[in-house]
Amino acid sequence: MAATMDWAATRRRFHLPDGVIYLDGNSLGPLPVAAAERVRRTVQDEWGEMLIRGWNEAGWMDWPARLGDRIGRLIGAAPGSVVVGDTLSIKVYQALASALEMRPDRRVILSDSGNFPTDLYMAEGLIASLGRGHELRVVAPGDVAEAIDADVAVLMLTTVDYRTGRMHDMAALSEAARAAGAVTIWDLAHSAGAHEVDLAGVGADFAVGCTYKYFNAGPGAPAFIYVRPDLQEEVRPALAGWLGHEAPFAFDPSYRPGRGIERMRVGTPPVLQLAALEAALDVWDDVDMAALRARSLELSERFAAGVAARCPELVPALPPEVARGSQVSFRHPEGYAIMQALIADGVIGDFRAPDILRFGFTPLYLSEADVDAALDRLERIVTGATWDRPEFRARKAVT
Amino acid sequence: MAATMDWAATRRRFHLPDGVIYLDGNSLGPLPVAAAERVRRTVQDEWGEMLIRGWNEAGWMDWPARLGDRIGRLIGAAPGSVVVGDTLSIKVYQALASALEMRPDRRVILSDSGNFPTDLYMAEGLIASLGRGHELRVVAPGDVAEAIDADVAVLMLTTVDYRTGRMHDMAALSEAARAAGAVTIWDLAHSAGAHEVDLAGVGADFAVGCTYKYFNAGPGAPAFIYVRPDLQEEVRPALAGWLGHEAPFAFDPSYRPGRGIERMRVGTPPVLQLAALEAALDVWDDVDMAALRARSLELSERFAAGVAARCPELVPALPPEVARGSQVSFRHPEGYAIMQALIADGVIGDFRAPDILRFGFTPLYLSEADVDAALDRLERIVTGATWDRPEFRARKAVT
Repeated sequence: MAATMDWAATRRRFHLPDGVIYLDGNSLGPLPVAAAERVRRTVQDEWGEMLIRGWNEAGWMDWPARLGDRIGRLIGAAPGSVVVGDTLSIKVYQALASALEMRPDRRVILSDSGNFPTDLYMAEGLIASLGRGHELRVVAPGDVAEAIDADVAVLMLTTVDYRTGRMHDMAALSEAARAAGAVTIWDLAHSAGAHEVDLAGVGADFAVGCTYKYFNAGPGAPAFIYVRPDLQEEVRPALAGWLGHEAPFAFDPSYRPGRGIERMRVGTPPVLQLAALEAALDVWDDVDMAALRARSLELSERFAAGVAARCPELVPALPPEVARGSQVSFRHPEGYAIMQALIADGVIGDFRAPDILRFGFTPLYLSEADVDAALDRLERIVTGATWDRPEFRARKAVT
Repeated sequence: MAATMDWAATRRRFHLPDGVIYLDGNSLGPLPVAAAERVRRTVQDEWGEMLIRGWNEAGWMDWPARLGDRIGRLIGAAPGSVVVGDTLSIKVYQALASALEMRPDRRVILSDSGNFPTDLYMAEGLIASLGRGHELRVVAPGDVAEAIDADVAVLMLTTVDYRTGRMHDMAALSEAARAAGAVTIWDLAHSAGAHEVDLAGVGADFAVGCTYKYFNAGPGAPAFIYVRPDLQEEVRPALAGWLGHEAPFAFDPSYRPGRGIERMRVGTPPVLQLAALEAALDVWDDVDMAALRARSLELSERFAAGVAARCPELVPALPPEVARGSQVSFRHPEGYAIMQALIADGVIGDFRAPDILRFGFTPLYLSEADVDAALDRLERIVTGATWDRPEFRARKAVT
């Protein structure tokens, strides 16, 4: 049973700008209050005073593994199976390059059309480099299970669809992949910190994720990678960087992979970003993931019900019976302009081409009052068609 | 002729801890005073207040190219030919993967034993992934020129040797590589911000570098990559990340490389680190590279002459006639303990296995008085053998 959480207390641990209702933590989480001071300390007291000695004295060198363990606790990964670094794209590449070598006789990377594009792009890039006739097979999300066959080397999926919020059944698909002899790579971009994940329990082989969304570690915060403990010693790191070497400071001329998950490190870790990540993870120390998930569904269902009743023009992106992550998405042909008008009115959600309005609900800093206020403003904009103005229709690059 | 520089003024732009003489800016540069405020602004005013809107409103999305151009000015690269991101290891991989594809009929990657290990490791890792019989041929630094033959696909060198400081003749080796039909990759880790570099002038094909050394952008600051302008459109990015896509926010299912250098971007850029980099680069706006180089030689030769006269037990790592970068290195069998004792006495240099003491001299914040004080302390430690204590001999992981 889920523990009782004091969500008003977690909300106080974030800086939220006045007048803003932030429903886009699934793009970039807000600033944890302690992160500002934590980054200041690393800049001024550590870099400024310790200089190069910070690598040992402040422990910078150990942060990727130490913070990896703290993330591991939130995604069902044992200590020593997660390490932080690089970007999610790089971590996808790393996992995929290693995974393909574990199945040298197979040629298919199976993914779905709900995967985030960069995962598919990195696969394309790797396939072209290898030049061995691998195929990236992309099917509809609902067709994944039946597409897992004996040709599949790797099943690479993002658990929660960045547009619709549709959530895959990690346990069932991991089991199907295992039965077919395929290696699994789960991208947890919209899962880590959003809902319960049990990597060890489902027997995932690899997982990757980012920390700037639900973990609130700031813009450009580093990614993480998980490798199943009993696979770690057989994984060859394609990105054989010096900090993944068994003895980085021996400066050996030849690469020898480091022990366990350490071999998935590559280059010098981004210390300022890691400082922010550390403070961001402090917020999670007392969070019960089951309680978080229950509360996230409560808030998002309240929003979805409100939209259905008050803005029926917005069509749910998913049928109600389909499991979803911590977001609710709707389709509308004027989705872009509606979202711009909503943002101008202080409710920040997200638009994803071609027609998706996306709203993220994280219990850490959102309440029923926020949901209700967001609904009021959305209804006013949709029913009043106040989005139909040139300033809301003019498209610019959006993230 | 070199412009006259006010080095006392540049020194005031850095925070230097009391009592420390910092001769290790070639590992990690000190904190530029303005960087602390710049990072605070990005954390609190941008991330904190703008949230996701920071990507457009604060311009985060454009920083990798904009800061790349600012770096380009300091290494002889035209606007639009440098972009910032990832780590140096990743950028080496990116350059090498692209370069090998430009010479599909050749199998040799030529490098030297003075290259930083991660460059060699990344090459090893890529070769193993490709499985097409490429060979990493590592020769002594002095043998590189004659080793360039028609089998060489790529000449991959670090301009300045991280241990000895030995500097390659970029113009001559680039020309020799071009004559032999080989692609060049220059690693500028110990060159960018250390001495004059003219990438366009020497006709380099690719270059990579880091920003946490001479550019003083902080621990884990991102790397950069240069691609010769007329090659950019034919370069296939092996690391095909979404931010290198022609239209990242169209979320196309298939990768199309972005225009020019933009295609060498991969994932989400590390915004907090980029903020520090921006402030760090401000210091360079008024720096004349020829004047910097002249001053660097002046300071380092003063130090080398002092060591020769006062600590002859320290053997110069290079003969005097060999060109070197912005560092001076010496060999001593007890180099580790000597460096530990020196650091304990407030003079921070660096030790590199097996026996190298390394001292970096950057004019931005060092003066003759620093050189002389460092010599006094070094002499006391070496001649008094005060390094011969357990606390200085006990080895730990060092960077």
